[in-house]
Amino acid sequence: MTILLMDALPHRDAWAEALREKLPGHEVRVWPDVGNADEIEHAVACFPELGELAKLPNLKAMHSLWAGIDHVTRDPDMPWSVPLIRMVDHSLTQGMLDYVTGHVYRFHLTMPAFEALQAQAEWHQQVPPLVEERSVGIMGIGVLGSVIAKQLAGLGFQVRGWARTQKTIDGVDCFAGDAGLTDFLAGTEILVLLLPNTPETADIVNDETLAKLPAGATLINAGRGTLIDEGALIQSLDSGHLTAATLDVFKTEPLPKDHPFWAHPKISVTPHVAAETRISTASESIARNIRHLESGGSFDEIDGVVDAKAGY
Amino acid sequence: MTILLMDALPHRDAWAEALREKLPGHEVRVWPDVGNADEIEHAVACFPELGELAKLPNLKAMHSLWAGIDHVTRDPDMPWSVPLIRMVDHSLTQGMLDYVTGHVYRFHLTMPAFEALQAQAEWHQQVPPLVEERSVGIMGIGVLGSVIAKQLAGLGFQVRGWARTQKTIDGVDCFAGDAGLTDFLAGTEILVLLLPNTPETADIVNDETLAKLPAGATLINAGRGTLIDEGALIQSLDSGHLTAATLDVFKTEPLPKDHPFWAHPKISVTPHVAAETRISTASESIARNIRHLESGGSFDEIDGVVDAKAGY
Repeated sequence: MTILLMDALPHRDAWAEALREKLPGHEVRVWPDVGNADEIEHAVACFPELGELAKLPNLKAMHSLWAGIDHVTRDPDMPWSVPLIRMVDHSLTQGMLDYVTGHVYRFHLTMPAFEALQAQAEWHQQVPPLVEERSVGIMGIGVLGSVIAKQLAGLGFQVRGWARTQKTIDGVDCFAGDAGLTDFLAGTEILVLLLPNTPETADIVNDETLAKLPAGATLINAGRGTLIDEGALIQSLDSGHLTAATLDVFKTEPLPKDHPFWAHPKISVTPHVAAETRISTASESIARNIRHLESGGSFDEIDGVVDAKAGY
Repeated sequence: MTILLMDALPHRDAWAEALREKLPGHEVRVWPDVGNADEIEHAVACFPELGELAKLPNLKAMHSLWAGIDHVTRDPDMPWSVPLIRMVDHSLTQGMLDYVTGHVYRFHLTMPAFEALQAQAEWHQQVPPLVEERSVGIMGIGVLGSVIAKQLAGLGFQVRGWARTQKTIDGVDCFAGDAGLTDFLAGTEILVLLLPNTPETADIVNDETLAKLPAGATLINAGRGTLIDEGALIQSLDSGHLTAATLDVFKTEPLPKDHPFWAHPKISVTPHVAAETRISTASESIARNIRHLESGGSFDEIDGVVDAKAGY
């Protein structure tokens, strides 16, 4: 059984080592040393070179190293007939849960406002509201988003969620589709983006949608950089309509040195750390799926198999 | 039935109005207009003038506007034979819960480190650990502290607590007394101070205790300003042993303009907002206790009656 690791990132060697350790008796090859392409049954991919996946005729499954899959689906020759499995990993979910919860509190407690007061040595007791008086809106309430929505609701926040299709989550006010977007945004003080990158979600945060948020709203993007029209975001911040934004993902990563986000006083940049894959747990997740398939298990029993029609 | 409001703060009129509204049929006087002191049965106090409480011979109870009581007990002539009731109010507990949780996440996610990277336009993916890999130590696990400890444990943090006497809290590793302090501190990455102001807690955070924290620890003081030896704190931050501190309470409030905390790059100052009393809910709490006592109810059934021996 042969596995091909197709990873353009610096941690490639650590990944190969982890997979070899967890899948004894398997051959783990590292692209570009493909050898006989007919032998490759599993591709473990992170930004594979365009066209390379299509050269593997006997591929049974593609395993994405990340929860997002656009680094694989960006390839126009990607073989959609082969099942693609996104990363479903406790450490990834937990990392995202921590990041979003912490940054929601940062805006809830108006930490940036207190930092500005401190810079002036100004003692001004502007007490923030309580969690039960604060609304958080989550765009993207799939597996990950619903876990986050439930945690925030459990902490006492007013939580609302939006998705393409209608969902039901205990304690969360759910909105759906174009019809529900306006009402969803109108009642959201802290907007959290967790949507995947699809043609429908490109620039979904734009002049029109930003204007539908209440004045003073804040935004956290832990989904994809493609979700935001960057010019519209800056304009909304500069006009004072949006108060602040925290961004972990960008259209170009690493974020270029001369990008205006770095120096914008109302933008906090983090370098795509919200849901960083931890090799130890993530390699076990992939190894488990490969063992399951090899022992005759079906794709239906695997978490994270991508719906080829929806593209996520 | 006559109530005397003894409040040195600017919100005195709002308090008088709220008490009159919630206690119809009662007379609410505002110090210094005491009238006939023999008639006063309840004192509602916030920084009362020294010696004034002792001038009320028929006082049945003293009601503190805050959870802390040192603004009342600082009076050497305070009549300890009269029961003193601290503020127990949902909004106060919730506000403290929000503040501590949010600031714990700020340090957990190493937000100050990412802010420093952003200032240099530096894309460096230093991924923080997960909550289950992070230990939070809470000094002061009474009513408020145990609620906070439980919430943080529920979020996945490793939580430990320290108190004068041994406590038991589900999911929290409890330490007690002088004997337990060293072990408690040695395993604490984020130290949260929630202790009351008593002779025993004065400067409890000093050169010796700070040195017992692991290198790289952080500190959040939401208890009392008296808990910290200010020089020792600055020295520990400057030496690099302690990474950062968030302070909401101070030995002198408002914090003087020229105090070194304001401009210290590793200190975040907030102006005593963690547990700000909201008049609407807090006045109802006091009114409920007064109605309870007047209808023959006992002090045993009231939350927050101060133990005169322990001083809190």
